Amino acid sequence: MRRAPRINQFSRLLLVEWRKLKLPLNDETIVVGVSGGADSTALLLALDELKSAGKLTVKICVAHLDHKLRKTSAHDARWVADLAAKLGYESVIGRAKVAELARANNDNLEQAAREARYAFLERTAKRKSAQYVLTAHTMDDQAETVLLRLMRGSAGSGLGGMDAVRPLGTSMSIKLVRPLLWARRSDTENYCRFRKTPFLTDEMNSDLGLSRVRIREQLLPLMQSFNNRIVEAISRTATQLREDRAVLATDADELLQRVSLAPGSDETEAPALNVKLLANEPPALRRRALREWISEARGGTRRLEMVHLLSVEKLLEGNAGGRTVELPGGGRVRRRKNRLEFESESN
Amino acid sequence: MRRAPRINQFSRLLLVEWRKLKLPLNDETIVVGVSGGADSTALLLALDELKSAGKLTVKICVAHLDHKLRKTSAHDARWVADLAAKLGYESVIGRAKVAELARANNDNLEQAAREARYAFLERTAKRKSAQYVLTAHTMDDQAETVLLRLMRGSAGSGLGGMDAVRPLGTSMSIKLVRPLLWARRSDTENYCRFRKTPFLTDEMNSDLGLSRVRIREQLLPLMQSFNNRIVEAISRTATQLREDRAVLATDADELLQRVSLAPGSDETEAPALNVKLLANEPPALRRRALREWISEARGGTRRLEMVHLLSVEKLLEGNAGGRTVELPGGGRVRRRKNRLEFESESN
Repeated sequence: MRRAPRINQFSRLLLVEWRKLKLPLNDETIVVGVSGGADSTALLLALDELKSAGKLTVKICVAHLDHKLRKTSAHDARWVADLAAKLGYESVIGRAKVAELARANNDNLEQAAREARYAFLERTAKRKSAQYVLTAHTMDDQAETVLLRLMRGSAGSGLGGMDAVRPLGTSMSIKLVRPLLWARRSDTENYCRFRKTPFLTDEMNSDLGLSRVRIREQLLPLMQSFNNRIVEAISRTATQLREDRAVLATDADELLQRVSLAPGSDETEAPALNVKLLANEPPALRRRALREWISEARGGTRRLEMVHLLSVEKLLEGNAGGRTVELPGGGRVRRRKNRLEFESESN
Repeated sequence: MRRAPRINQFSRLLLVEWRKLKLPLNDETIVVGVSGGADSTALLLALDELKSAGKLTVKICVAHLDHKLRKTSAHDARWVADLAAKLGYESVIGRAKVAELARANNDNLEQAAREARYAFLERTAKRKSAQYVLTAHTMDDQAETVLLRLMRGSAGSGLGGMDAVRPLGTSMSIKLVRPLLWARRSDTENYCRFRKTPFLTDEMNSDLGLSRVRIREQLLPLMQSFNNRIVEAISRTATQLREDRAVLATDADELLQRVSLAPGSDETEAPALNVKLLANEPPALRRRALREWISEARGGTRRLEMVHLLSVEKLLEGNAGGRTVELPGGGRVRRRKNRLEFESESN
């Protein structure tokens, strides 16, 4: 009888999370987003260790997007492709002109890079008939995300941070999975060292002009002087807020169904809502229901912020109809007597 | 016809909030906690302005607790009593040996001072047959509270910060009201200057050994470099989290009723809970219901933290009974087959 190979603690914890998230153990193709930094390199190496130990028999496809934001980006892409090849995995290297996309969509660079990256991962998953796309976000990324959103005045839904599993893009069949949210950044670096595998350092990580970098380099160290385990504390809070958010989303869905009227005319594709019923509901559910309604009516919540939902809520007050709220990113909401109607751009 | 006296913006905004919170305009006695700092002095002066302008005809009783933590505390108490007398209001000055209380209850000084202060305000309200006790917490205090709790790893309920109105102590008939949560600290200072009334400066406000002071002096200024309106942003988020918390509390109450069994024996005063029903509920509601159940069973949640609720939740797993979780601050929870039972200390 062969002794089972010893599995490193980092990979073992990944396997625990893998089972907790009910990810497939066999056969399926898994797309792994690898930038070449410590986090994604560690994720790839740990998956490799679990495959070598026979704990997983999934197929791995490494995906890397060259953002073309830096001179070294082509070199980084080659480095990732080489690492994948050395481990014996297929890789898909995409290219996007993020700077141009940002200008075209009037987004900032970070936002445009993120959108391009997720679109690429989704395309890759479709091409490979993969249902799972993995990214290597850690607990440190989670804490940074929560603080970013807190400082932007996000509501509770935003403060919950990143989900461990969520649908990727519009296709509900592909799941974006973050199986390293339990790990600290130091864990991924240590595991890469343990595996004697170098990793890339993104020079954007030391650009103090970026909010995320300043959170990492300035804000979190100050907060750590209050609580030595601040990253863990914020991450735990975020988990509880996500649990709250799940309950509130279910309640809001029920509310939306309850207040939905049949579409009144050809003008409106989304059902009109019953104003009298909505007006008496708690604001926390009402706003979520309105947000969901708008999202379904126009296929997304892009540029929709709390201030717009508050304007729509104001339409519920009093008895006067005929008032309208224009939404950024398309469409408007009109109050007609006891009905709230969504009108798309083309009307 | 006499022209209505011109009311300062600060007092006018207080009146707007007063109406929003549905506080009484006439006759009732209102206890106002006044430390003598800018916030509470401004609150007292603004109430005085609204009374002078005939907008309010409530009776005002100034309450001040001398914590005996500093040599100047007796002087501060006299200063507040003099200010009240000069404006023509009654004052009640209490005294508490907070340092001794802290040692006796093993609390830190800030915690002991807060408890002594609220107990004093409640006693004063009862003596004066007042249903409302006002404190002068501002939006800055709110932001500091949210950050303190975030760094302590509070769940969403804690991150909501302070309610504008909540019951004071165990008597449900007395309400603690914070009618200045819309104001910045600079507003209260400016209003005191406008009224040419000096205010006391608490030397504890510059003690960097206190977390709250470090949040004010170090953390918030750094966060302001990310968002110039950080205090407003955090305060708005807190308001939304409180709205979420209200919905979740209602849901959890319904859940608790649904899973409650009749008390099975003399041993248990609190109803036993149905384990099978609880086990399938979302964690966000289950934990809130368990917390409420424990609170009702032993009259409070003192020293009860998330870690203890997680232990109680673990009792729901599997089929084995006979397991017990000891709670800090009194009582234990026992799993018996399909029942969860609360046992108080004396059993």
